[in-house]
Amino acid sequence: MSDLLNKAQLVKNTTTLLATKTTTQKNDALLLLSDELCHQKDFIMKENTRDIDKARKNGIHESLIDRLILNSERIDDMADALVQLTKLDDPIGDVLEEWTRPNGLKIKKTRVPIGVVGMIYEARPNVTIDAASLCLKTGNAVLLRGSSSAIHSNTALVEVIHQALNKSELPADAVQLVEDTSRQTAAEMFKLNAYLDVLIPRGGKNLIDTVVANSSVPVLETGAGNCHLYIDETGNKEMAIEIAINAKTQRPSVCNAIETILVNKNWATNHLRELVTNLKEANVLIHGDEIVKAVDDSVILATDKDYETEYLDNIVAMKIVDSVDEAIDHINKYGTNHSESIISENNENVLSFMNGVDAAAVYHNASTRFTDGFEFGFGAEIGISTQKLHARGPMGLEALTSTKYLLFGNGQIK
Amino acid sequence: MSDLLNKAQLVKNTTTLLATKTTTQKNDALLLLSDELCHQKDFIMKENTRDIDKARKNGIHESLIDRLILNSERIDDMADALVQLTKLDDPIGDVLEEWTRPNGLKIKKTRVPIGVVGMIYEARPNVTIDAASLCLKTGNAVLLRGSSSAIHSNTALVEVIHQALNKSELPADAVQLVEDTSRQTAAEMFKLNAYLDVLIPRGGKNLIDTVVANSSVPVLETGAGNCHLYIDETGNKEMAIEIAINAKTQRPSVCNAIETILVNKNWATNHLRELVTNLKEANVLIHGDEIVKAVDDSVILATDKDYETEYLDNIVAMKIVDSVDEAIDHINKYGTNHSESIISENNENVLSFMNGVDAAAVYHNASTRFTDGFEFGFGAEIGISTQKLHARGPMGLEALTSTKYLLFGNGQIK
Repeated sequence: MSDLLNKAQLVKNTTTLLATKTTTQKNDALLLLSDELCHQKDFIMKENTRDIDKARKNGIHESLIDRLILNSERIDDMADALVQLTKLDDPIGDVLEEWTRPNGLKIKKTRVPIGVVGMIYEARPNVTIDAASLCLKTGNAVLLRGSSSAIHSNTALVEVIHQALNKSELPADAVQLVEDTSRQTAAEMFKLNAYLDVLIPRGGKNLIDTVVANSSVPVLETGAGNCHLYIDETGNKEMAIEIAINAKTQRPSVCNAIETILVNKNWATNHLRELVTNLKEANVLIHGDEIVKAVDDSVILATDKDYETEYLDNIVAMKIVDSVDEAIDHINKYGTNHSESIISENNENVLSFMNGVDAAAVYHNASTRFTDGFEFGFGAEIGISTQKLHARGPMGLEALTSTKYLLFGNGQIK
Repeated sequence: MSDLLNKAQLVKNTTTLLATKTTTQKNDALLLLSDELCHQKDFIMKENTRDIDKARKNGIHESLIDRLILNSERIDDMADALVQLTKLDDPIGDVLEEWTRPNGLKIKKTRVPIGVVGMIYEARPNVTIDAASLCLKTGNAVLLRGSSSAIHSNTALVEVIHQALNKSELPADAVQLVEDTSRQTAAEMFKLNAYLDVLIPRGGKNLIDTVVANSSVPVLETGAGNCHLYIDETGNKEMAIEIAINAKTQRPSVCNAIETILVNKNWATNHLRELVTNLKEANVLIHGDEIVKAVDDSVILATDKDYETEYLDNIVAMKIVDSVDEAIDHINKYGTNHSESIISENNENVLSFMNGVDAAAVYHNASTRFTDGFEFGFGAEIGISTQKLHARGPMGLEALTSTKYLLFGNGQIK
């Protein structure tokens, strides 16, 4: 039996037991893991150094190496996140609905673990602890498949997880790392419907696209964010400019930063120059249409390609539109259904925008940067879903749960 | 452009408009369709005859031909179902949660249509009206792909749908039928992520397995039901026998009928013979283990294969188990996570069973035959999901919805 199948079997065998564990038992295990991480810092950092040395030898860019690093501070952060996680409500066992049928059958819809979560992720080894702990908190077993570049770090972290779980009342086999990081093993994982209930890819667009295109296991897709800000005719000037700068520049590399600003032609007549000046002062490079370019010659003329691009950089596309309807059409054509915002004082246009735009999160008079599990108040985040099924937008612990109907009778037959 | 891509584009183009339609506008369209079905009966039956003639010429079995038939009574039933559908609550626009963050940002989680539903189904042409109407009621556009054996009936029904929608305030393009019923077109549909938000297969196991194995579009899987009845040591004899007969024989061909009866050894000591006699009197053929066979020689000795089989017939597997734990393990090993029932007067065992069995619906002292959207009181049913994500168990209108976060600010930046 391959390592993959063996591990898949091991995790699956723990699901029945895991589903019956109490919140206290699960939290105790997370606290034991938090302690173990602190105690085993030297071991973790030593193993992490092997990955870093290899990355340096292979000439990997320092910014990517930075993502690999597990130093004392980062391990403390991981340990602290585990303590925070124990403070969150456990969704498992919640009764979501309850009713009685005319025949006396009482129906309860309850929250249960999903079962086995498959996680495929790139470089950052902290995802190992993050994914494992969120799964355990929700009573799920997890099969982890990290990248080869972090294999020593990931192996060390899973060893620490096993040591902690062995001291706890949870089954240690509930967390397993696939050691073979070949593409072929990933491809086999895509087809493990008999063992995996869901596959969650975490990483770049290529990874996610590959998983979505090839997995027969249901996928929780956390996609790209080609987000827009639309400044309506009546948009407050100061607010519009401040939000444009914030949503573009506060952290350009994340999925909830904006990539295109759509400006109503009448707002543009009065304020476009000031918006452009402010963006330039914030070191933003503008790719605009002819009207925008007419205001400032440093503007690069935008093409359709720009409207499709998630720059993830200090670059923004800018286009003048005639109406809120044109803005909605543009967003639904080029957007990725992530986060979209309208700045407006016209209630009718706000309503049209919020109803008409097809996205996980639609904002009125606020920055798109709030699309995040922590900003939403969930206290945890598995990722931000851009798909329509199961969970949409920031995913907290509930996204890692399923439901089960319990039916109580006294002899009912049909 | 192929017919498939052309139709996919047409339906997708209607989603923004459809999402803004009111409950009244949607119900009015359903009532117009109900009327149109009655008015166009002759046309529908004439086209249906072409499919039936072809099926007869091809020597198709009469039981399969029966599924194809659209007679006056069946068309009346379809028309009536549309009227009933208008009486159900429209889930679209429901506010599921609402809260305000410390920064003043107000967050509303609302119910919205999924967008475009792809439906792949076999023979029964009534699915055309069923799928289209449930999708329209929930503001979804739908791309239909029926089987070649029902192509004239389906084409006629979609023509009638278009005539009704043209008189309504909903866009007629929201419902399209793919005319090319080749396997290649189905395979292309599996990859239409750019147009389809979900794919729902309706038909036999082969169809569903093919869609699950090959679709990169998220699938709502409505799977097989290898359901069990477990009679615990303390199970009430009369109740256990009555429920066993009902769950097996009331309609053996459906997914929520039982396929295996697990009997506690102590209950068996006193009542096994009576259970076996009653099942035989109800014309049930028993495939049992050695203990069951020892009670009645007509029992066929069961193999592992029996425990994996969904007979969909008057046949049941029967096995004696030592405890509720053995029953749970057997069900989690051989079951399909559909519907499972325990007959017991022991609360501790009932709790173990309900928590330990991994299924969409777990019953205490009732027949499994109630796993059904109508029996649950949903008033409609898209199918019974045996997967863990999005929806599990009987799926009503809510299963055809997604959510959208609306965020109201007054200038919030991060």
